[in-house]
Amino acid sequence: MPVGLSAASTVSLAADKLDTGNTTFMIISAALVMVMTPGLAFFYGGMVRVKSVLNMLMMSFISLGVVTILWVLYGFSLTFGTDAGGFIGKGDYLGLSGIGLTELWPGYTIPIYVFAVFQLMFAVITPALISGALADRVKFTAWTLFITLWVTVVYFPVAHWVWGAGGWLFELGVIDFAGGTAVHINAGAAALGAILVLGKRIGFKKDPMRPHNLPLVMLGAGLLWFGWFGFNAGSWLGVKDGVAGVAFFNTQIATAAAMLGWLAFERIRHGSFTTLGAASGAVAGLVAITPACGAVSPMGAIAVGVIAGVLCAWAVGLKYRFGYDDSLDVIGVHLVGGLTGSLLIGLFASGGVQSDVKGLFYGGGFDQLGKQAIGAFSVLGYSFVASYLLAKIVDLVIGFRATADEETAGVDQAFHAETAYDFSAVGGSLGRTPATGPVLPIGEENGSGTTENQAEQKKVDA
Amino acid sequence: MPVGLSAASTVSLAADKLDTGNTTFMIISAALVMVMTPGLAFFYGGMVRVKSVLNMLMMSFISLGVVTILWVLYGFSLTFGTDAGGFIGKGDYLGLSGIGLTELWPGYTIPIYVFAVFQLMFAVITPALISGALADRVKFTAWTLFITLWVTVVYFPVAHWVWGAGGWLFELGVIDFAGGTAVHINAGAAALGAILVLGKRIGFKKDPMRPHNLPLVMLGAGLLWFGWFGFNAGSWLGVKDGVAGVAFFNTQIATAAAMLGWLAFERIRHGSFTTLGAASGAVAGLVAITPACGAVSPMGAIAVGVIAGVLCAWAVGLKYRFGYDDSLDVIGVHLVGGLTGSLLIGLFASGGVQSDVKGLFYGGGFDQLGKQAIGAFSVLGYSFVASYLLAKIVDLVIGFRATADEETAGVDQAFHAETAYDFSAVGGSLGRTPATGPVLPIGEENGSGTTENQAEQKKVDA
Amino acid sequence: MPVGLSAASTVSLAADKLDTGNTTFMIISAALVMVMTPGLAFFYGGMVRVKSVLNMLMMSFISLGVVTILWVLYGFSLTFGTDAGGFIGKGDYLGLSGIGLTELWPGYTIPIYVFAVFQLMFAVITPALISGALADRVKFTAWTLFITLWVTVVYFPVAHWVWGAGGWLFELGVIDFAGGTAVHINAGAAALGAILVLGKRIGFKKDPMRPHNLPLVMLGAGLLWFGWFGFNAGSWLGVKDGVAGVAFFNTQIATAAAMLGWLAFERIRHGSFTTLGAASGAVAGLVAITPACGAVSPMGAIAVGVIAGVLCAWAVGLKYRFGYDDSLDVIGVHLVGGLTGSLLIGLFASGGVQSDVKGLFYGGGFDQLGKQAIGAFSVLGYSFVASYLLAKIVDLVIGFRATADEETAGVDQAFHAETAYDFSAVGGSLGRTPATGPVLPIGEENGSGTTENQAEQKKVDA
Repeated sequence: MPVGLSAASTVSLAADKLDTGNTTFMIISAALVMVMTPGLAFFYGGMVRVKSVLNMLMMSFISLGVVTILWVLYGFSLTFGTDAGGFIGKGDYLGLSGIGLTELWPGYTIPIYVFAVFQLMFAVITPALISGALADRVKFTAWTLFITLWVTVVYFPVAHWVWGAGGWLFELGVIDFAGGTAVHINAGAAALGAILVLGKRIGFKKDPMRPHNLPLVMLGAGLLWFGWFGFNAGSWLGVKDGVAGVAFFNTQIATAAAMLGWLAFERIRHGSFTTLGAASGAVAGLVAITPACGAVSPMGAIAVGVIAGVLCAWAVGLKYRFGYDDSLDVIGVHLVGGLTGSLLIGLFASGGVQSDVKGLFYGGGFDQLGKQAIGAFSVLGYSFVASYLLAKIVDLVIGFRATADEETAGVDQAFHAETAYDFSAVGGSLGRTPATGPVLPIGEENGSGTTENQAEQKKVDA
Repeated sequence: MPVGLSAASTVSLAADKLDTGNTTFMIISAALVMVMTPGLAFFYGGMVRVKSVLNMLMMSFISLGVVTILWVLYGFSLTFGTDAGGFIGKGDYLGLSGIGLTELWPGYTIPIYVFAVFQLMFAVITPALISGALADRVKFTAWTLFITLWVTVVYFPVAHWVWGAGGWLFELGVIDFAGGTAVHINAGAAALGAILVLGKRIGFKKDPMRPHNLPLVMLGAGLLWFGWFGFNAGSWLGVKDGVAGVAFFNTQIATAAAMLGWLAFERIRHGSFTTLGAASGAVAGLVAITPACGAVSPMGAIAVGVIAGVLCAWAVGLKYRFGYDDSLDVIGVHLVGGLTGSLLIGLFASGGVQSDVKGLFYGGGFDQLGKQAIGAFSVLGYSFVASYLLAKIVDLVIGFRATADEETAGVDQAFHAETAYDFSAVGGSLGRTPATGPVLPIGEENGSGTTENQAEQKKVDA
Repeated sequence: MPVGLSAASTVSLAADKLDTGNTTFMIISAALVMVMTPGLAFFYGGMVRVKSVLNMLMMSFISLGVVTILWVLYGFSLTFGTDAGGFIGKGDYLGLSGIGLTELWPGYTIPIYVFAVFQLMFAVITPALISGALADRVKFTAWTLFITLWVTVVYFPVAHWVWGAGGWLFELGVIDFAGGTAVHINAGAAALGAILVLGKRIGFKKDPMRPHNLPLVMLGAGLLWFGWFGFNAGSWLGVKDGVAGVAFFNTQIATAAAMLGWLAFERIRHGSFTTLGAASGAVAGLVAITPACGAVSPMGAIAVGVIAGVLCAWAVGLKYRFGYDDSLDVIGVHLVGGLTGSLLIGLFASGGVQSDVKGLFYGGGFDQLGKQAIGAFSVLGYSFVASYLLAKIVDLVIGFRATADEETAGVDQAFHAETAYDFSAVGGSLGRTPATGPVLPIGEENGSGTTENQAEQKKVDA
């Protein structure tokens, strides 16, 4: 996302008045990025066992709630306020007050409000990405506290480094079109830090932990793919110069290539093309092309996709070898995919799209590759360490992990007093007794489809 | 939706030629509002028991069918035709004939056809909102007749009052950006009228009536949230002056705040954060900010959201106290949320967004609050009385309610000859006998995935 | 899609510079068309039995992978390259290299890259449409090979005939706004050719083959309806002249009318309004209005919709009479619906929208009807014969059909080593033993939510 370019003044977009086409582009792109968070919830939710699907969904939805409010209060200011030393934004926009209706984001033809709400959606989904690694065993209040601290201490600063005018990685010339470092490496490294504090699921490597609903996983993957067009193309903040169109196309290409790469890998290594592999491969491609979609040619996008698909398919197996419980492969897909895409820019940047920077294979030497490595590993290191410490703090203050009883019974029951499905025909006459359904209704005296009722019934139970 | 402003000539948009940015904005917004109706179907469908989910879906989908045709025939004319006495539009556009391809909506830079199809999507979803209160027990033909009458007698006139140039509430100065009165109070009051005729579900307050599929509820909530950006921001009919961007942002803020407010309420009162609470809270926030998204500041949107979330969370419990069966909380969320948002404009309107009107807390006195109250309660009163009478008429003519047998067996079987799920492995070899699945296949002789077949099988059964 | 019009120079759009409104319109439309393929996957996936839902999803997703890469390599060149004899495009754009960032599609105000990615989404969904006819019994590798050959030999040429500048059907004056011939007749005829080679499902007309998840079908229908607005309106490639807005509106109208027509037909003939009928009727309407959405008036769109709804509802029963196993009614809906819409243009074209061409009922005589018939039946004939031969070739080379054991056990297990759902509470304590769930977990020793694990477990099983 080249938003800092406004400061660097290297882009010659007509920036003196609001453009309705670009503004529409950004408003709709913001909506597309928003729908990625529910999409992610379903992608993850389908992968867990039936006893923790609701908790998985809630870990994403709560980010929509908490991070939105923090963004208004101070997040936008810390990320995109006037730079302070390359590391953080000043509090220019606290409470988002005092901004004119048609005041434009400097250097662009869209209102600040539109820019701010588009960027908000990135701040929402990034912590949600982490949740997949913590499946089935984190306390819901602890998760909520963790992401509150995490966006404040990690996401807002790191996004400023990469995209803020004056941010040190931005000024260094690191290319990150839409979030290879700030979103994916960031979330992946945070996942690693958090699970070192959290520990493994009970039964990891022993009990069967198959996805309970693969069509739900595919729905999530479909919504992610769809919304990601807003995430990537939208990050150019306008369509005038053709870059957003290429970013869109490269996103589609790399995603397709990564899906095929992952499927080929698992067919060769394990003998089958799985739907979980198709969904995971698509996401790996989306992740890898995220930083690179404005730097490579269509043929380069195929290369980035295939490499990411194969590499991530291989990487998700490492957790069994090394014994860390990256439950839904946040590290294997987002950290590895983010690194892949960020570093491959140093090889495949073809010049002529978002900038004239060329990678090693296009005659640009090692220069950009070095910058990309600095960007990738500094984000990785900071996020890992800070996230580990934040998880430790949360653990000390209120406890990070569910009790063994809560985990065994299922975090849906433990933290949300709900079970996901009830396919029994309660009170009906579909030709069988109600007691044989897949998920028994919890005892209730007076029921309805409302929270109120569920809570009341809970009191009755107690 | 300030569409009447064209007459009042208070907005200085360049209105003499089609703007491609604004037209794209409205076309895509119309698509976003369209997807809200399927989203609503899933939101409601997941909340009912497994024996009535298909009927719940069909009550929304049939609105897409019926209301679209009525809109072409006379609905658009009654709503947006030349004003007759402040209460209804004349038949200027019957059959949508004689409109030029690039003829613009007066005062705006978008074609009439685009304006008309955007507004159509509002007419489709409003009656669908009502359906949640009637879950599990209304005859499908009666429902179809009811919404046919209802949009004709209630929605078209009320939308004209609020948004039509010359409509009496519009001329009075009532602020309703995107439908707090015309959509939500309207649907909520109609729900109350209709269920007084319909009566309670068999087993209300006695039998367990848990949601059968909470991930489906969350899918619905996610699609509603996504589509609602088109609903609210799109209601400004263009992006040129920055108002649509603020409306978009306020929508996101209030929704997040309401979700947190609802969750906090249920945690304090009942001890758990439920997914149903998160989904319901988000919808409550979307409802409440709908009239207000162009009138308040971002901090005001937080206030509107939190208040709506807490108030609706409390209001959905009233049905148990007073004994009306608002099955899926249409009154608790849409009537209460719509009233909340409409009235809070009188307090929180900050001036400087959609207009210079200020509410009580911003030095504007009680003036706007009074207007908002007149708007809210006149729509409430008219809709309640008219809907009660229409339901009575339908009941007299063809009967409104399913028989006790139909209701007990499930309205899916009774009216649609289908069951929603069949997870048994019929004819397969997945290691178990087919007879233990959650929903038994109804007897069939020759089967396939088609209606034709199901109908034929029905004849075979008979 | 009037893309060839650039050559014919009959449209006077200002075409000399990029328009941000039109470019945004096309980028978002491309995203909308993309989401149709997952939507189709769910629409089809919900209709099959539980043992083949994943395979059904994968047949669509693999098209997203394979066709995207082929499009970059040579598909766009064959379809939209410089015409060679009216039948195919030359290799102007192999590998999509050498295109300038802001180089515009000739005659339009959008970049070539944006045009190319929009058209790509059509090439992706067309082969996916075919998959419904082959449900439950085709080898996954054979399907992948088949669509690779099919888009190369059938889709790319036929799309060139219809939409390429110089394409013979385009030059003849056949009207096909968004794919009645090139997409729907094409896919429907291909389905017929392929199933003649493939044969019927085991148990066709004997065993029960009910849809296993009707809410999933409705989700698919909802996403299709939503995305189809991009498919149809987007096909005008811009919004400046008002045609796209009418195309959008007509799409909504005909879809609503067809849903009502189908529901009325099945109510009269079989006694119930089914959800499957509502979903199928909506799709039939979307199909039929696809070629016609720029040629008819709103009242004409109602006519096209009602006729298509009734005709397709009747046509899906023909397979039982004639004994071909069009499993999910690709022929009944897409071939019949595509023919209906394409031919009705000859009757209902009203002039004044996309062109001045008038049909029989508007005083235009039989001229256009004849052209439409030539277009429809030449595509039908070519696609049927070529698809039959391609299926034969695949069958000879690697075998087209699953073995009887694979089919009986379910193609999900056979080709993807997965089962779709696991609602048993493995390792939990939800009050029952894990062994009674609807789909038993396949034996696993070390489990998790990843492909890696499933594959490893597979090795353990072996």
